[in-house]
Amino acid sequence: MLPNAFQVRLQTAAEAVEAHLAAILVDDARPGERRRPVRLMQAMRHAALGGGKRLRPFLTIETGRLCGAPEAAALRAGCAIELVHCYSLVHDDLPSMDDDEVRRGRPTVHRAFDEATAILAGDGLLTLAFDVLADEATHARAEVRGALVAGLARAAGAGGMVGGQMHDLAAEGRFGTAALGEPEIRELQAMKTGAILAFAVRAGALVGEAPADARRHLDTYGAALGAAFQVADDLLDYEGDSAAVGKRTGKDAAAGKATLVAALGPDGARARCAALVDEAIASLVGFGPEADILREAARFVAVRRT
Amino acid sequence: MLPNAFQVRLQTAAEAVEAHLAAILVDDARPGERRRPVRLMQAMRHAALGGGKRLRPFLTIETGRLCGAPEAAALRAGCAIELVHCYSLVHDDLPSMDDDEVRRGRPTVHRAFDEATAILAGDGLLTLAFDVLADEATHARAEVRGALVAGLARAAGAGGMVGGQMHDLAAEGRFGTAALGEPEIRELQAMKTGAILAFAVRAGALVGEAPADARRHLDTYGAALGAAFQVADDLLDYEGDSAAVGKRTGKDAAAGKATLVAALGPDGARARCAALVDEAIASLVGFGPEADILREAARFVAVRRT
Repeated sequence: MLPNAFQVRLQTAAEAVEAHLAAILVDDARPGERRRPVRLMQAMRHAALGGGKRLRPFLTIETGRLCGAPEAAALRAGCAIELVHCYSLVHDDLPSMDDDEVRRGRPTVHRAFDEATAILAGDGLLTLAFDVLADEATHARAEVRGALVAGLARAAGAGGMVGGQMHDLAAEGRFGTAALGEPEIRELQAMKTGAILAFAVRAGALVGEAPADARRHLDTYGAALGAAFQVADDLLDYEGDSAAVGKRTGKDAAAGKATLVAALGPDGARARCAALVDEAIASLVGFGPEADILREAARFVAVRRT
Repeated sequence: MLPNAFQVRLQTAAEAVEAHLAAILVDDARPGERRRPVRLMQAMRHAALGGGKRLRPFLTIETGRLCGAPEAAALRAGCAIELVHCYSLVHDDLPSMDDDEVRRGRPTVHRAFDEATAILAGDGLLTLAFDVLADEATHARAEVRGALVAGLARAAGAGGMVGGQMHDLAAEGRFGTAALGEPEIRELQAMKTGAILAFAVRAGALVGEAPADARRHLDTYGAALGAAFQVADDLLDYEGDSAAVGKRTGKDAAAGKATLVAALGPDGARARCAALVDEAIASLVGFGPEADILREAARFVAVRRT
């Protein structure tokens, strides 16, 4: 598939995600709720709307398409994953965490609002993600909805994303000396960013009720893509220009963060990234040209500039 | 039922909850996870183990028993709700929120660990709650697990508990003047504490697959009990002795918090609490003596000293 066609599909998915997130993040109460506070919803919308490549929901949507999933199911599952991604950015940006003031070229939530509001907005986004997945509108079969909830909870929790952020803080030396080797950095990254990216792929297979062997290959794809994404992120931070990236760059080295650029050197990190892209593409060998968009996505995560 | 027998049942439930939470909050990875960071799990255990009346899971367990639910299902659903309750305490205690140093007679999580760890521990507990509910071990039927996830997400989210905490911060005047009348305070309390307490009752009816009319009466019971609990909490803060209560008291007035004691006066608040207990008990009129434990629970929330 032409890179241009890939960009169109990525953009189309991003627009669908933006519209659906906006519909989800309204002030109105739904059944079983009371009216949502205006300031809280403003902060949640600030965190979740108007930006980002929407790579995670794009992966869910395209994997879902490959597996014959209902379009609305893949979109809603992808939006739930994006809500979790956005909540994690809000909390990671907090003063006691990474203390960032700019995100996607705009003030972070605690700068635009205040710290307490940012904590609650993150909590609200995380909770809403599970609400979206458990809703009958996401999939007709309760077993599928349950598998989505369980999978997202494990990818996002203490043995996944939250645990990865904990490792990341520890790697800065906050809680005593920490000199991480390459295996520990890979484990940290597999948890902090890899788990959710891999689950974004798996969620597409779940809503498409893909057979076990297809799911296994897609799991390999998702794990390799997630790892490639994070090495590319380390390289972007090392090489990047903060105006283009839309957030502060060079901060990893300044914060003493554990990155694969530090562990392998820039050339070693580039080689590792390329090998992971190859691995992701190789895992799709059993799929036909209908998987070209996922092959292109694996290349994209390695070459993106933001 | 004798008050003494009630205390025994409450204590028995608390012990079962403590044991099950300890089993859930281990360092080991489960399928689909990586090893959970030790410091994070220490903080999560600090937040969730070794204290509390476990009133919410008690309500789920006893409502489940009344509705013929499998015991393990009610216990696990109750534990998930308790995880959400514990996460909310960790985040509410943070310096940018209520800035509390003591909880259940022990240092709050951000005092015992640090602020970043406390934020992540709260995030981990919230995420784990949905993991527990979505697990097949909670209930054989996926529809029941889905209803539990959806119900907890709505009770805990922006239109429930998180929204209530946002209203509570606003009521302090942080974001501009805020003079709340009694209706606004009742709305705030119905969201901040009422929604989760009411859901704890509903969760018992869900795991017991109670018929619609029983569910409706139990919903009325849960809403009245939740409201009574919060008025009693306001009275405890007003009258209480911080050594007995295990947390700082008198802080509501100091922080300019919206309470029903401030709105109705202490006598008015006591009368309102008694009326809510009567309403809760009246809603159970269709149930026989097997509901005596829930009747006793409604009385208990009004007279508890901690």
